[in-house]
Amino acid sequence: MEKKLVVDTCLSPQLYPVYHREDVIVVIIDVLRATSAMCTAFEFGVEKMIPVASLEEAQEYKNKGFLVGAERNGIAIEGFDFGNSPYSYMSEKIKGQTVVISTTNGTQAIEAAKNAYQVVVGAFTNITALCEWLTQQNKNILLLCSGWKNKLNLEDSVFAGAVTERLIKTNLFQTGDGSLAALFLYQQTQKSQVKFFHNSSHSKRLAAMGLKKDIKYCFSLDKTKIIPVLQGKYLVKLA
Amino acid sequence: MEKKLVVDTCLSPQLYPVYHREDVIVVIIDVLRATSAMCTAFEFGVEKMIPVASLEEAQEYKNKGFLVGAERNGIAIEGFDFGNSPYSYMSEKIKGQTVVISTTNGTQAIEAAKNAYQVVVGAFTNITALCEWLTQQNKNILLLCSGWKNKLNLEDSVFAGAVTERLIKTNLFQTGDGSLAALFLYQQTQKSQVKFFHNSSHSKRLAAMGLKKDIKYCFSLDKTKIIPVLQGKYLVKLA
Repeated sequence: MEKKLVVDTCLSPQLYPVYHREDVIVVIIDVLRATSAMCTAFEFGVEKMIPVASLEEAQEYKNKGFLVGAERNGIAIEGFDFGNSPYSYMSEKIKGQTVVISTTNGTQAIEAAKNAYQVVVGAFTNITALCEWLTQQNKNILLLCSGWKNKLNLEDSVFAGAVTERLIKTNLFQTGDGSLAALFLYQQTQKSQVKFFHNSSHSKRLAAMGLKKDIKYCFSLDKTKIIPVLQGKYLVKLA
Repeated sequence: MEKKLVVDTCLSPQLYPVYHREDVIVVIIDVLRATSAMCTAFEFGVEKMIPVASLEEAQEYKNKGFLVGAERNGIAIEGFDFGNSPYSYMSEKIKGQTVVISTTNGTQAIEAAKNAYQVVVGAFTNITALCEWLTQQNKNILLLCSGWKNKLNLEDSVFAGAVTERLIKTNLFQTGDGSLAALFLYQQTQKSQVKFFHNSSHSKRLAAMGLKKDIKYCFSLDKTKIIPVLQGKYLVKLA
């Protein structure tokens, strides 16, 4: 049997060092809502984004005159230009700009994986473009879920399962246990979407904040064909 | 609505600090094969077990004349009395004895959680006794999967899902996202046991070593009603 490429899933940024291998493409996942918002920002014309892990760094960029998005625990931080609602990036003012972004989980995951061979950003909103590109790279792939404060979260795990399903259908990939678990999880949630949404802790958290519209958007497929990719400290459009 | 107790699942010992809370019962899970072997040892009359994380500690106990089980990467270490095959503990010579045990993953998980409110040992072989006892404690519960070298593994995650299903059926518990993911995973694998066994990396590893008999035993339900519990450095039978 020909040796297949491996797709695996790491369910928390804190486990990234355990999964790290040279020469692997890492996909950063924070469905609700950082990576969804990043895809939206690029679709709406942002030129570069600078993901930063700490609010201190975000404030430093703000002081220098950058547009800055900053969110913690689902709430946009006062004094900044955006939170991490995708809707806040559907704006003319980001066109051609460099936007700094710091979020509860997603930017921490990028920080954890920044020295990987290649780091790209995935969300349901770019899933088809992402999976098509991933299948063309002839590289092992690690799906890195941002989770919630280093715990597993359901929506990122489910997305990892959706990507895993698309990749193994090409017959190019075999799964690590992490991706196999995510795949089974995704398949099961496909049968009980209502139960899934109703029970996911972060869906509950956002719904309680009146952000159901955001949730719906973040679970929409293929709003863009853009794949953001990390180049040094910048996220840019994959050429 | 009455406030329910919480059952959650931590999929790697390395994430334990993120999930740790005071006053929570931790269930250590290493289905293939450490916690299954521990349950067997108590069923066959061992009085106490001393789980140790390192082989150095295991050797020190061996030098002092203890019976010692030691395993790494699925292989019993030469010079010790047992590996972690449950079958190796089905022996008259352990009756009334104190047995030291060190394994690749399971004893590391015990080490990580040793300061929890209460630490018990779970496996398919004691699942019914375990779940009945857990539902009577009026405590939050954390299911701690030993995984494989700090990565998620499929069989421990599936067992956590099986326990979660039994606990939420009592209507006493709500789930954290970790347990919800494990539950969905378990439900999906119930529909495709063959696929599951065929794909699990550690099942493949053990099958390649000719240990299919062990796998079958470790997935058997209710071989014992004993729940091993940590008391200081000892595992003993829960009174």
